[in-house]
Amino acid sequence: MAKNAPTIAKLPPTLVPGDRIAVVAPAGPFNREKFDAGLAVLRGWGLEPVLGSHTAARKGYLAGEDGERAGDLRAFLTDPSLKAIIAARGGYGCLRLLPLIDAAVLDGPAKWLVGFSDITTLHHYLSQRAGWVTLHGPMVTTLATADGGSRRHLWSILSGAANRTLHFSLGEALLPGVAEGVVTGGNLTTLCHLLATPYQPKLADRLLFLEDVGEAPYRIDRMLTQMALAGCFEKLAGVVLGQFTGCGAWEEIRDLFRERLAPLGIPLAAGISAGHGSPNLALPFGLAATLDSDRHALTYHYPKDNGP
Amino acid sequence: MAKNAPTIAKLPPTLVPGDRIAVVAPAGPFNREKFDAGLAVLRGWGLEPVLGSHTAARKGYLAGEDGERAGDLRAFLTDPSLKAIIAARGGYGCLRLLPLIDAAVLDGPAKWLVGFSDITTLHHYLSQRAGWVTLHGPMVTTLATADGGSRRHLWSILSGAANRTLHFSLGEALLPGVAEGVVTGGNLTTLCHLLATPYQPKLADRLLFLEDVGEAPYRIDRMLTQMALAGCFEKLAGVVLGQFTGCGAWEEIRDLFRERLAPLGIPLAAGISAGHGSPNLALPFGLAATLDSDRHALTYHYPKDNGP
Repeated sequence: MAKNAPTIAKLPPTLVPGDRIAVVAPAGPFNREKFDAGLAVLRGWGLEPVLGSHTAARKGYLAGEDGERAGDLRAFLTDPSLKAIIAARGGYGCLRLLPLIDAAVLDGPAKWLVGFSDITTLHHYLSQRAGWVTLHGPMVTTLATADGGSRRHLWSILSGAANRTLHFSLGEALLPGVAEGVVTGGNLTTLCHLLATPYQPKLADRLLFLEDVGEAPYRIDRMLTQMALAGCFEKLAGVVLGQFTGCGAWEEIRDLFRERLAPLGIPLAAGISAGHGSPNLALPFGLAATLDSDRHALTYHYPKDNGP
Repeated sequence: MAKNAPTIAKLPPTLVPGDRIAVVAPAGPFNREKFDAGLAVLRGWGLEPVLGSHTAARKGYLAGEDGERAGDLRAFLTDPSLKAIIAARGGYGCLRLLPLIDAAVLDGPAKWLVGFSDITTLHHYLSQRAGWVTLHGPMVTTLATADGGSRRHLWSILSGAANRTLHFSLGEALLPGVAEGVVTGGNLTTLCHLLATPYQPKLADRLLFLEDVGEAPYRIDRMLTQMALAGCFEKLAGVVLGQFTGCGAWEEIRDLFRERLAPLGIPLAAGISAGHGSPNLALPFGLAATLDSDRHALTYHYPKDNGP
């Protein structure tokens, strides 16, 4: 464990064929064909997908009423027969659920929560309120079209067989250095919408992973400026950038991060294949790791008796 | 003055033909033709536009380096010969300037600061740090294509001849009631990016005006949810909605606001012609007013000896 890990991270148990995996839709409604194709991927691993009462509900851009989505999530969080919950899709909606999740539902053993994009909100909630290690990675509908490497990597983590070190295929050491910290972060826009709320991410001593989709450079700039003014970067251990898909010229995005982080003297690495592009390699959040910017590598520190 | 006005509002002096008006570009670069046409409107009122050393500078989506834009703004704020500063354009960039404005430049007498959209950031800065009344309204480049009513209304406020009461042409009393408070707000997105920073808007006892452009309903929802979770709405006096241009179906936007504000028992009015559409009627910020939702009217309480 990193010296600065805030609490003992609660790593969920590994999955084995035959296990059930809950499918929740806490944010937006989804395409049924992609959803079914994603379920087939889960079944291919020998898992039995379990749908909630409201997984297929719809209300405009939300997958049902807040109470329906929160009800499914609460039921899954407290079901002792489940080791893992995977989101059907992102979009938007998790932020509306936070006040509806009773902290008492987090008293039980840790479960995997798998997803990205809007699911960033739930990663921070479960990490900060319950200390659970969660999994930033493909969801049911994105598994449908994911490449084989992304699928295998996700299953390798869930089944306890992942390599501890992740090499960045497109590695760029924007700011050199080595740092240790608990990995967190997710979608930059989603993260920004937690600021000033009771769920604002705690970023001191963290390795911050960030990705985004469809946000123009000036919007990325605005978010980074806000986070800088809010003091979010002051005690960061390091930053690792994933994909910024449809966000304009990478050189512009890269320079924005370098401008904000250079004065801090912390490592800034880019090129990890995670986010809204392909591959989307799953990343445990809430677990300590070492970022080596120069070697383009992130090495997780799994607890000896419990991890892959 | 409203009973809850936080400080004595500093109303800038009225303008008369012959006065100089500074033109600053604190955010994005602008179209030169529209800019020149806007200057002609100012000259038509008998004003003499004064450009900064860097007004026409450009750096990507910014109107020059931060130091250049902040330098012009600081110079104008401290120039005793100026009663008013008008922005050339919005876009994005004001947030980057705030740490570069020395509070000491606000020691002098109040000046009008005119603009909207990204200029929202400066409205809140000047209101909270200096107590100045500012003017949410057309900028140089939008004056170029503004309708006659919007132009006349802006000049009527600057020249001290405005009606105290503004009737909403498309008035909708979404939540009935009458409330008194200091008018503030501006562009919803820009406002959200002040959250958690040292410049976070103080909204207790305020009448909050909001408008936005090009943000889909789920994004408006996300911002309102964030603000609600951050407690921004808890002590509001009332809300008045301007234009939500290119933000999708108005019915959807309207319902989002009603959902968030109905539990508070405060008036929520819509239909004031201000924002990114046309007309864009100038609204003094930092000045107390009475919102009458049922009568679709906002009545300003100008200090007797100093206002229109």
